[in-house]
Amino acid sequence: MVKRYKKDDAYSYALGATVAMELLNRRPECARRIYVSPRSEVEAVTQRAEALGVPVTVGEKPFNILSPKENCFVIAEFDKFACDISSERHHVVLVNPSNSGNLGTIMRDVAAFDCADLAVITPAADPFDPKTVRASMGAVFGIAHKCFVSFDEYLAAFPGRTVMPFMLGGAPFGRVNFDKNKKYSLVFGNEATGLPHDFDKFGAARIEQSDKVDSLNLSVAVSVALYRLYVS
Amino acid sequence: MVKRYKKDDAYSYALGATVAMELLNRRPECARRIYVSPRSEVEAVTQRAEALGVPVTVGEKPFNILSPKENCFVIAEFDKFACDISSERHHVVLVNPSNSGNLGTIMRDVAAFDCADLAVITPAADPFDPKTVRASMGAVFGIAHKCFVSFDEYLAAFPGRTVMPFMLGGAPFGRVNFDKNKKYSLVFGNEATGLPHDFDKFGAARIEQSDKVDSLNLSVAVSVALYRLYVS
Repeated sequence: MVKRYKKDDAYSYALGATVAMELLNRRPECARRIYVSPRSEVEAVTQRAEALGVPVTVGEKPFNILSPKENCFVIAEFDKFACDISSERHHVVLVNPSNSGNLGTIMRDVAAFDCADLAVITPAADPFDPKTVRASMGAVFGIAHKCFVSFDEYLAAFPGRTVMPFMLGGAPFGRVNFDKNKKYSLVFGNEATGLPHDFDKFGAARIEQSDKVDSLNLSVAVSVALYRLYVS
Repeated sequence: MVKRYKKDDAYSYALGATVAMELLNRRPECARRIYVSPRSEVEAVTQRAEALGVPVTVGEKPFNILSPKENCFVIAEFDKFACDISSERHHVVLVNPSNSGNLGTIMRDVAAFDCADLAVITPAADPFDPKTVRASMGAVFGIAHKCFVSFDEYLAAFPGRTVMPFMLGGAPFGRVNFDKNKKYSLVFGNEATGLPHDFDKFGAARIEQSDKVDSLNLSVAVSVALYRLYVS
């Protein structure tokens, strides 16, 4: 039977037909079971699950436990998985992101502007929290992402890259020209506190903005930066 | 006494201390009343309201009616207002945006990349819905925005501009060079259906993306496009 998600669980849940379908298409080996509401009219997910040999259970109860408020008729239970990120790709590095909705939205950005893998420095929002998975619209299954316990651990694993931290005191990002021969690590801090001052030493960039807002939304900052890298 | 918001009301509500403060700072003449929860520790909004002569009411009931689920201790009631958008500025034009969260987030983008006013073609999400106001983090009070009943009505009011619709079949946006002598109207369609085909005639642009996602989130598309215009 399903139970409310906890961070230490070995499995998690993908809420909604679209997200469940991404799981079945991108990470079928991790799919444990599909729960379908008796009120569901969605046939495609059920057919795909049956073709893959993933068990399907029809019933209302999992929805009451996992999704009491949402208009959700399909839930996929899946094993968490580990993936590696590649030294041959650019990286988006999130240092201590705290909001699971932001983290999921950024996963979707990383899938959309597909030139970078995602590194997350903990403590951080949980990449497999159902809220993150939902906000990612299933991108969590299609991108490469990995957690590191510190930025130093990340740097030691990926030496020789061009680290570009985004900070309020940095140089105007609009004038940055990316060098096609380099692998970039675009580094973003926590939503409320930003990056620690010592990231300055890498040579920071600042996304230009007016003083009409205190700061850019984290996923807006990532989108703007990553798009420019994607098309450069 | 407060009541649940309806679209035809002449007034609306700004939920949360930050959003209420933006109202008091940007549109004080529209502030009708501030409701403060007895559990609130926020003094700054109350002081500002009293300095402006805006009545303050302490009590729990408005919060039960307007914000039963949220961690919100200040609500501002405000008169809706009309504003004009300027022919001297660029414009973001949203054609039939349906999601109030998206509309609010885009208002925040428009405030952040402050080179454009916002036109909304109806039917559309309500710019003054408390959900929009909340998602805008108060940017609704700081930007210029105006609704039009059709794109033709908008065009008639603002002739001679460079209209750039964003469509899947358009030319790569990364290669677009903005002309400093022109006033641009960046036009975006509905979240689900995009723009009608006949917008092609204006010469469409497409924000490059991978096939790992079906489409970009509307506010991501607006952010990416508007940022480039802002720094160009």
